[in-house]
Amino acid sequence: MTSLFKKRTQKVGLPPGTLIHIGNKKNEPVKITVIDYNEKQFQEKEVDSIEKCFKYKDSSTVTWINIDGVHQTEIIEKIGKHFTIHPLILEDVVSTDQRPKIDIFDEYISIILKIPYYDDEKQEINIEQVSLILGNTFVISFQENEKYFFEPIRERLRKINYPIRKFGADYLAYTLIDIIVDNCFTLLETLDNKMNTIEEKLLGHPSKATLYAIHDLKRKLLFLNKSIWPLREVVGSLERGESPLIKNSTKIYFRDIYDHTLHILENIETFREMITGMLDIYLSSLSNKMNETIMFLTIIGTIFIPLTFITGIYGMNFKYMPELGWRLGYPIAILFMAGIAILMLFYFKKKKWL
Amino acid sequence: MTSLFKKRTQKVGLPPGTLIHIGNKKNEPVKITVIDYNEKQFQEKEVDSIEKCFKYKDSSTVTWINIDGVHQTEIIEKIGKHFTIHPLILEDVVSTDQRPKIDIFDEYISIILKIPYYDDEKQEINIEQVSLILGNTFVISFQENEKYFFEPIRERLRKINYPIRKFGADYLAYTLIDIIVDNCFTLLETLDNKMNTIEEKLLGHPSKATLYAIHDLKRKLLFLNKSIWPLREVVGSLERGESPLIKNSTKIYFRDIYDHTLHILENIETFREMITGMLDIYLSSLSNKMNETIMFLTIIGTIFIPLTFITGIYGMNFKYMPELGWRLGYPIAILFMAGIAILMLFYFKKKKWL
Amino acid sequence: MTSLFKKRTQKVGLPPGTLIHIGNKKNEPVKITVIDYNEKQFQEKEVDSIEKCFKYKDSSTVTWINIDGVHQTEIIEKIGKHFTIHPLILEDVVSTDQRPKIDIFDEYISIILKIPYYDDEKQEINIEQVSLILGNTFVISFQENEKYFFEPIRERLRKINYPIRKFGADYLAYTLIDIIVDNCFTLLETLDNKMNTIEEKLLGHPSKATLYAIHDLKRKLLFLNKSIWPLREVVGSLERGESPLIKNSTKIYFRDIYDHTLHILENIETFREMITGMLDIYLSSLSNKMNETIMFLTIIGTIFIPLTFITGIYGMNFKYMPELGWRLGYPIAILFMAGIAILMLFYFKKKKWL
Amino acid sequence: MTSLFKKRTQKVGLPPGTLIHIGNKKNEPVKITVIDYNEKQFQEKEVDSIEKCFKYKDSSTVTWINIDGVHQTEIIEKIGKHFTIHPLILEDVVSTDQRPKIDIFDEYISIILKIPYYDDEKQEINIEQVSLILGNTFVISFQENEKYFFEPIRERLRKINYPIRKFGADYLAYTLIDIIVDNCFTLLETLDNKMNTIEEKLLGHPSKATLYAIHDLKRKLLFLNKSIWPLREVVGSLERGESPLIKNSTKIYFRDIYDHTLHILENIETFREMITGMLDIYLSSLSNKMNETIMFLTIIGTIFIPLTFITGIYGMNFKYMPELGWRLGYPIAILFMAGIAILMLFYFKKKKWL
Amino acid sequence: MTSLFKKRTQKVGLPPGTLIHIGNKKNEPVKITVIDYNEKQFQEKEVDSIEKCFKYKDSSTVTWINIDGVHQTEIIEKIGKHFTIHPLILEDVVSTDQRPKIDIFDEYISIILKIPYYDDEKQEINIEQVSLILGNTFVISFQENEKYFFEPIRERLRKINYPIRKFGADYLAYTLIDIIVDNCFTLLETLDNKMNTIEEKLLGHPSKATLYAIHDLKRKLLFLNKSIWPLREVVGSLERGESPLIKNSTKIYFRDIYDHTLHILENIETFREMITGMLDIYLSSLSNKMNETIMFLTIIGTIFIPLTFITGIYGMNFKYMPELGWRLGYPIAILFMAGIAILMLFYFKKKKWL
Repeated sequence: MTSLFKKRTQKVGLPPGTLIHIGNKKNEPVKITVIDYNEKQFQEKEVDSIEKCFKYKDSSTVTWINIDGVHQTEIIEKIGKHFTIHPLILEDVVSTDQRPKIDIFDEYISIILKIPYYDDEKQEINIEQVSLILGNTFVISFQENEKYFFEPIRERLRKINYPIRKFGADYLAYTLIDIIVDNCFTLLETLDNKMNTIEEKLLGHPSKATLYAIHDLKRKLLFLNKSIWPLREVVGSLERGESPLIKNSTKIYFRDIYDHTLHILENIETFREMITGMLDIYLSSLSNKMNETIMFLTIIGTIFIPLTFITGIYGMNFKYMPELGWRLGYPIAILFMAGIAILMLFYFKKKKWL
Repeated sequence: MTSLFKKRTQKVGLPPGTLIHIGNKKNEPVKITVIDYNEKQFQEKEVDSIEKCFKYKDSSTVTWINIDGVHQTEIIEKIGKHFTIHPLILEDVVSTDQRPKIDIFDEYISIILKIPYYDDEKQEINIEQVSLILGNTFVISFQENEKYFFEPIRERLRKINYPIRKFGADYLAYTLIDIIVDNCFTLLETLDNKMNTIEEKLLGHPSKATLYAIHDLKRKLLFLNKSIWPLREVVGSLERGESPLIKNSTKIYFRDIYDHTLHILENIETFREMITGMLDIYLSSLSNKMNETIMFLTIIGTIFIPLTFITGIYGMNFKYMPELGWRLGYPIAILFMAGIAILMLFYFKKKKWL
Repeated sequence: MTSLFKKRTQKVGLPPGTLIHIGNKKNEPVKITVIDYNEKQFQEKEVDSIEKCFKYKDSSTVTWINIDGVHQTEIIEKIGKHFTIHPLILEDVVSTDQRPKIDIFDEYISIILKIPYYDDEKQEINIEQVSLILGNTFVISFQENEKYFFEPIRERLRKINYPIRKFGADYLAYTLIDIIVDNCFTLLETLDNKMNTIEEKLLGHPSKATLYAIHDLKRKLLFLNKSIWPLREVVGSLERGESPLIKNSTKIYFRDIYDHTLHILENIETFREMITGMLDIYLSSLSNKMNETIMFLTIIGTIFIPLTFITGIYGMNFKYMPELGWRLGYPIAILFMAGIAILMLFYFKKKKWL
Repeated sequence: MTSLFKKRTQKVGLPPGTLIHIGNKKNEPVKITVIDYNEKQFQEKEVDSIEKCFKYKDSSTVTWINIDGVHQTEIIEKIGKHFTIHPLILEDVVSTDQRPKIDIFDEYISIILKIPYYDDEKQEINIEQVSLILGNTFVISFQENEKYFFEPIRERLRKINYPIRKFGADYLAYTLIDIIVDNCFTLLETLDNKMNTIEEKLLGHPSKATLYAIHDLKRKLLFLNKSIWPLREVVGSLERGESPLIKNSTKIYFRDIYDHTLHILENIETFREMITGMLDIYLSSLSNKMNETIMFLTIIGTIFIPLTFITGIYGMNFKYMPELGWRLGYPIAILFMAGIAILMLFYFKKKKWL
Repeated sequence: MTSLFKKRTQKVGLPPGTLIHIGNKKNEPVKITVIDYNEKQFQEKEVDSIEKCFKYKDSSTVTWINIDGVHQTEIIEKIGKHFTIHPLILEDVVSTDQRPKIDIFDEYISIILKIPYYDDEKQEINIEQVSLILGNTFVISFQENEKYFFEPIRERLRKINYPIRKFGADYLAYTLIDIIVDNCFTLLETLDNKMNTIEEKLLGHPSKATLYAIHDLKRKLLFLNKSIWPLREVVGSLERGESPLIKNSTKIYFRDIYDHTLHILENIETFREMITGMLDIYLSSLSNKMNETIMFLTIIGTIFIPLTFITGIYGMNFKYMPELGWRLGYPIAILFMAGIAILMLFYFKKKKWL
């Protein structure tokens, strides 16, 4: 079993706001990319030091700073200082075991999210933490690793005719979250396929492996549920428009995501009920098999035990057993035994055991 | 198993409002019918291009535009443009995997619904997505396929003396939703019949097929529940009158539907509890059968094993076994064995095993 | 199984407010009785046409019109016209498959209720629909059949000294609903008796019939719950005094009923938990019985199989088997076998199998 | 099973406020005691007629009238008249099958409670109904039987230095309710002990009796839960201070009780989860035992059946069986059989069956 | 089983506010330490009498009085008097069986909490009660025993450069609660490890001990849940800022803790679902094992029983059995039996029993 936890024991007793990276240790350098755009102009570049992004803070264009890797806490610290982010938020960004959450400040909104995705190689669900800082004209996104979840959005930004270029930073944040929710749908489809495979096995030849597969699926759904449930709250809070940073025209988009998360949660619920049903079928097919075996044993036993008893009788060594001397004693005994066996078989037929 | 999902992977990363038809691919042309009426006049026609409907938008009469087929997205797009529908709503109309939902705008209300119905041929529950756009004087309805759910309403509209002609577009929307809820009742009756059939089998000769039938029914209820549960919210929102497009006099009708959805949900709940009970009966009847078999084996074994042991004794070849020489040795042995068998049978009677 | 549904398929697509009787078809005439009273005077009569009741509508005395039978829809229609009842309410009155509900209008309150009662002959719970229309000075009550639920109230009304004569129509409605709730308590007592009977069987000799009885009881509770749960909402709405037709002094009475419905629901809940416990006991007694049988088989087998093996050895026909020629060979063999049997029995005692 | 109900069928159809004692019939006279006190003075006496208490109604001192026995309804009626208590409340006082409830009037608060306590003799939980009427300067308490729950409070009242003498009637009501909650804790401890006893048996030698004990405990908790759950609402209502009869300084005491009821409910919940666990252990120990027995049977059978077959072979009477004539035929056969038996035992060891 | 309760029967009937220590009896002296600090100065000392702390009450510096041991009630009483704490709160402090709770007064906030921690020696979860009194410039903390949970905070206070020195008493209270929540994470990790160990056993060789380990874990989670659930309410109440003693700038820190408690509760929930899955696997592995055994018995029986029957036939002593005289009778019989055995084995292969 993969552990549910990333170890955080090291943090006990440390002051809040201490930036300690929690997650898998890494050595790769952090990759920082900046995209700056408005309806007319577009600029995209990779920078080697975070300071180069700072000039975009107060520009009127929309700026998207994406940081792949949160293990170099000094970068996070510098961002925090320049954009005046609360230390607790920075701590959440680098601790990749956070529960999805939203914090609304006057100057910015911080959003911690989870992207669950299916790792085809390891046949596992992985969960990547993504943090967003949404300011008035900028979005800063932090990912644990360099993954390509956001590539489609970059594609759309690069083209002048997509409506995304006309909207502000809040809409950019929406598209980033939308991608995350779409990834959940993809994951659900993967699980749906898995479920179909299991079900076919279940109706064919269920084995111990089928049981483990069912339980594995159940656990995967548990994981997924744990990411989506708080996501619902986060999106709901954005949709209700508790911050002026979210424009009214953008709210309907967040509401759309909200509906999608509900849809996902309902599907997870349905999946779980179906898995319970599959467990029932598995267990009763076990019982059925045992039943069948015992019935077979019973039939064999019931037919032969009386016959063997009869052979036992004529195997006794009494001096005076008249049947033994009969000429037809042997064939009569054989016929008698055959008769008993046939009667038994009729009886079982009548009892629907055969 | 029918998959729970219509594939939507193709949509990951696309901008919101992109009209991509999600659902079964089709080639039939889209059928557009227009009904325009008020208390005095009535007009019904099938049109070949959507533009011909546009003139009804601002007429004072009530106009019902029904579109059978949402796979030609250009038609949907034209409607969206002319009636100024938000792109996200249009996207929902063509994606037939939506969760039932309602969006209330100043100018119109958009309602996405599901009609579950029983496909007698395939012995399956099918779910059809129906979308309604309710404006001040018009209703636009979208169906995935040409089905005849709404035919009774057309019948009523055609006759001058039905009260429906006196009411506005909101009442028309109500009748459309009412038909959907009535279809759910019909479906429940079908499932009720199925349940009775299963129950009879269960009390007669339950088999593996009975188990699968129970689980199939359980899944069908899950499907139904998934459509009705959000329908409740949708109708509740209409009944509370959150939009001026719903007149006060119409609200009581929506309230009636609301009560019906509650009724359906309670019946589904009751069905599910009864199914749980049926599973219990199935499993304990399995146990009972196994019990019976084992008891039979035990009785046979218990009677004959000691008898066979006795024949074994007198089958031994010891030279000095006085009984073997007795004149009546054989009949005495037989009587002795008969006596043991009878004692055993008495014992079983007393233990209530026979 | 009695079906959960009264068929309503016939209503699909009909306009709302169409009065179609849903329920068992009947030919008996509808019985109409009128009771008109105030503190001083009292008048009770059976009328043959509904028009004769209409004069009481605006009298200052309290009038109670009771209608036994809702299958003659023309009578209901006339009442609806004279007392200006909304068509949807009339439809609910004649459709006897309604969920208990309350509708509060300015001029009147309509209440649809269910009286569950135990039919001693059929050993079933029956459910009768009762509808009340409460106006300022009148109560109209509709019952499906002529039953005597309300007789005690008539008795009280006939006597001048009972306080009921001093109160208004709202108090009369209260007493009618109170009778319904009291009937539920009676029903609970019947079910409580049934439960005790089952429990005794369960601890004595549980059989398949016991299982069916448990499930039958469970289903009966499900039925009861379905009637009482919405009743709670109905009474709660009256108690909160959402209508001026309910005087303040009467509210405390409705609150008393409200507490009673809570009490009933809690008892139903308790019953259901106890039934779950009974199922557990039934299943584990099945297991116990199987255990006992298998243990018996094991003991018999374990004792005799080795013994039979020994007789087999001395039944072999080898020429050179010295024991066979011993004078005491036979008794020694017998004693040896007895020794083995006794050792076995000791072993089982130690293992607590005997 | 003790019935869950005290019979109330006799009440169906009676007017509300009719005082009919529901509960065990009794003949003992009702005992009435009056305690009248303030910070300075204290008076305690037993009176033989209720009228002698009436003079205390409007005195400025705090008066506590305790009535042991509610079966003499005329006493209750007199109190009702003198203290102007609503007839419905009086009805609740004498019907000892009430759900705990609170009714807040301008002049007084009526509180119906249940004291569950453990009857050591009958090994049962009993439930006693206690009703309190809290006025401005008086508390009237009604108990079904003369029990000594309230004795500690009398003790404290008798001593001048206890703070209780400084507070008003609301504080007295608090202490009475506090005693009831403390009794629940005592009861929980008793059940906790019972649970430990059962658990020891469960890990030692579980038997059918253990199962019944588990279910008995489960039912006891159900009973307890039914009393405490509504108590929570009652105390919560007092704590929120919905009546001016409860002084602000007393509210914190009610809040303390409220926390205690929450604590009790959480403990009951924990107990119930533990009982579910105990049932699981019981059932799987049943399965284990069956497993063990079957395995034993299998081992015995598997070892001896092939051996017996071999003896059968050499017991055949064919004329030409060379082995029979061998000098060492017999010992070789014996050794051969021993070899098979040893191989079998090795096989079982390897399979971890031994 | 460790009892769920600390005995509190001794308290029944005592007046509220009576200080009776509930918990394990102890003789060690109570240890009192005082830390007094602001941004510039820091003072830490252990005092031998509680009076020496009183001078800090009104100083402008932040004072933290920590009391290890609540069994000397006279100390608690003195504190209560000097800091004017409500007697009920003092009672809660010394009764170490309290439910976590918060009471907000004008002058101070009292917080009762539980620290669950894993006792490595006894392999048990222990729960320590910690009470905090938060005033304007002071925090008084009470622990049952001298434990070192708070040592890291003292460390941080001793160093001048930590931000904690700049904040007030509310921030100090936050750090104390934060430590408690961090301890819960540590505990969760311990349980996570335990779960992994059990799971490995479960997939390897599950035994009765595995079942007990599963149930033990389940119970531990129950304990943990009971401590954390009310903690959520406590922290939620602080975060909502219901008291002016909590400064606005501190609220975000409490909100952070609030998110952590939610995270813990969700993890507990996930753990519990996984445990349910483990129980399912355990039970079905039991069934599987039984299945396997019975199948083995059936195969052995089915092969040998007919063979033994055949040897029985040729062991009969009929005079006229032609086969017995055949020269090849014996080898033919042996071959015939071998043939039957081989056919049987084929049959089992086909049935997938081998």
